[in-house]
Amino acid sequence: MKATIISIGNELLNGKTVNSNAAFIAAKLYEIGIVTGRVVAIRDETAAILESLEQALAQSEVVITTGGLGPTPDDITKNALADFFQCEMVFHEAIWQKIEQRFRQRGIPAPEVNRVQAWIPAKARLLDNPIGTAPALHFETPVPGGIAAGGAARHTLVLPGVPQEMKTIMAESVIPFLREINTAGLIEVHLYRTTGVAESKIYEHCRALLESRPEYEVAFLPKTTGVDLRIALREKDAAKKQRFAEFEAGLFQTIGKYIYTTGPEELEEVVGKLLRERRLTLAAAESCTGGLVQDKITDVAGSSDYFLGGMVAYSNESKMRHLGVRAESLQRYGAVSEAAAKEMAEGVRRAFGADIGISTTGIAGPGGATPEKPVGLIYLGLATVQKTVAKKFLLIGDRVMIKERGAQAALELLRRELLGMENTTR
Amino acid sequence: MKATIISIGNELLNGKTVNSNAAFIAAKLYEIGIVTGRVVAIRDETAAILESLEQALAQSEVVITTGGLGPTPDDITKNALADFFQCEMVFHEAIWQKIEQRFRQRGIPAPEVNRVQAWIPAKARLLDNPIGTAPALHFETPVPGGIAAGGAARHTLVLPGVPQEMKTIMAESVIPFLREINTAGLIEVHLYRTTGVAESKIYEHCRALLESRPEYEVAFLPKTTGVDLRIALREKDAAKKQRFAEFEAGLFQTIGKYIYTTGPEELEEVVGKLLRERRLTLAAAESCTGGLVQDKITDVAGSSDYFLGGMVAYSNESKMRHLGVRAESLQRYGAVSEAAAKEMAEGVRRAFGADIGISTTGIAGPGGATPEKPVGLIYLGLATVQKTVAKKFLLIGDRVMIKERGAQAALELLRRELLGMENTTR
Repeated sequence: MKATIISIGNELLNGKTVNSNAAFIAAKLYEIGIVTGRVVAIRDETAAILESLEQALAQSEVVITTGGLGPTPDDITKNALADFFQCEMVFHEAIWQKIEQRFRQRGIPAPEVNRVQAWIPAKARLLDNPIGTAPALHFETPVPGGIAAGGAARHTLVLPGVPQEMKTIMAESVIPFLREINTAGLIEVHLYRTTGVAESKIYEHCRALLESRPEYEVAFLPKTTGVDLRIALREKDAAKKQRFAEFEAGLFQTIGKYIYTTGPEELEEVVGKLLRERRLTLAAAESCTGGLVQDKITDVAGSSDYFLGGMVAYSNESKMRHLGVRAESLQRYGAVSEAAAKEMAEGVRRAFGADIGISTTGIAGPGGATPEKPVGLIYLGLATVQKTVAKKFLLIGDRVMIKERGAQAALELLRRELLGMENTTR
Repeated sequence: MKATIISIGNELLNGKTVNSNAAFIAAKLYEIGIVTGRVVAIRDETAAILESLEQALAQSEVVITTGGLGPTPDDITKNALADFFQCEMVFHEAIWQKIEQRFRQRGIPAPEVNRVQAWIPAKARLLDNPIGTAPALHFETPVPGGIAAGGAARHTLVLPGVPQEMKTIMAESVIPFLREINTAGLIEVHLYRTTGVAESKIYEHCRALLESRPEYEVAFLPKTTGVDLRIALREKDAAKKQRFAEFEAGLFQTIGKYIYTTGPEELEEVVGKLLRERRLTLAAAESCTGGLVQDKITDVAGSSDYFLGGMVAYSNESKMRHLGVRAESLQRYGAVSEAAAKEMAEGVRRAFGADIGISTTGIAGPGGATPEKPVGLIYLGLATVQKTVAKKFLLIGDRVMIKERGAQAALELLRRELLGMENTTR
């Protein structure tokens, strides 16, 4: 079963809006064995919508559109669909009542302009949108050429462009439905998420191994904070379980120490799980990462069970006053130093009464560098009741990238400590 | 002049990689009056690349591709281009030396697999990549049908997929080049970034005004943290300056208090500029936003000039111990209360010796809610030497969205305070 994604919205072609929706949808389809052949982004123009729908339905059994369901006049998707599927628009009182109720919850009356969201093409089946005002739509069109021609029915699924709403509807309606009608063989996807190692380095490490399995589809997905390695197996290759097990064992032998998870979760979730299992508490003291380490940690639901809190100690004075970093250390070695990182980690551990303290201090740039201390230099500290360690990094990138990479390295330092791994990344 | 963007990479069609590159490129082209007609994402397959290039060059004068220039075997773009433009691949010693040097800086030898990045199609002009290993390429193809046919030459610009590298090359090479060859009339784009108000509410406020200018292209761009309103003017409309000035004055009359900038900058940059101008210092105490407020503030280069630091006080104990929140307040009103928000703001201001203290305390969910205190309830505090204020919000969304929206609301509270605006958002 093949899919085409049509992303509708001038903002995708003019402006700053990033088409994260298409990537999300393609990933979810891929997981259930539906291959996305093409993603097309087009303008909010009836002609472009009609043309793309026609092409897409000729090429693929599933067409998913996003965007253009909002209450403002640039949202024309529903009218274009009524055109395309040759039906009239009907008003759904139940949808309007739900919209009114949502606004009431926030203490404001529903704007009249939202009323347009209750008008729906008559041939559409409604898919519930539990967190937004616009429902999603499903159109089923007959087999091209009639059932006798042997083709499969076509499904057009019309989703809102607001990412959270689209994601919820994908999870609750679209994927369960497609899983049911897609009887073709599933693809098995394996993910290995790494950090602290370059893409080319990973490749060098496991080149021979990868070349021994030419039938696997290999993708390296570099991100600011690490490289994901994805291995996809067709049905017949997935069936050879022993052959894959050997491959995976080899993978862990060569790059295992860089792999922080084989699931979809982020490093902060991995670390959170380890802290919870070991019943340990954590506090963090940040300088150059400016709160990002703690922001990541607290993105995890339930993190208040193990994360006690921490400091952003941007100034030297706050490092001394709140974390007990010694004036002498700052004078002799500077705020960006192994000594400062260690004392910050110890200080925050003490101040919050935590089992573990972690710290970051470095030069995120663009200002603040010296010949001895360039932009990207960062020291990380980690203190437990038994010991304190520090580690030096030289990170590449702009200010935001250095913050991202520094925060990731701090979480990785913690992960390795919690697993009793030797704490050297390279 | 029209453009097509071709995004190359299995990861865009299978997986989690978001096509932020296409949005970035489209925005930059739009700013200089080049309209992107279509964005197509395709797989790392020679046939798909050749087919898309042919289509794109038939439809548009400028074709920009991203992706497939890396050192691993799934990167096939350059070979496909050599096929398409019918030339051989040549080895550039200078590129290889630059690659070796980059790795040397990081203290590791250049992996042999990177050598493939120095092989380049002979017909390509090189565009410097100052921050990465893969150079970008430019192919100029003759006017279709010969100069006599009156068409314009075609330009294919081939960029790496790594976002920071692509962005740098766009800024330093591609945009200056296209600006020079694109002699068509520019489009004028005006941006109004708002926060604290719903898309439909903005529309309701300024509907009559927008309808009085049907010739302007209006786009509402809702994001988690606010709604951007973008107004684009064709050349002839941009020339009527008085007419636009009246329109803009009307816009500020109706929704001006929600507009935090008319430039591209984020709210934290606006606030940073205000603090710097007024020579005021800031400290922050966060509970439910978990470090995100401070992370945003420190994303701004030079923020250490006005941001002294702060706390993430996740536990009640840390709120009392480090911020001086009174046990009595916590007992009587709870940690999520106006009293706690005020005392946190005052406490962090004192602890860091700052002119202004801001605070957040709320329920980010999914756990921790009670019938009286639902998920999304958040109190923000702000303390100066003269006064302390607090403000209550009921935010919608999942945990990460509530953190995002809470942090944005805290920065907006600060902006309004700095501008002496009445601090009511609705």
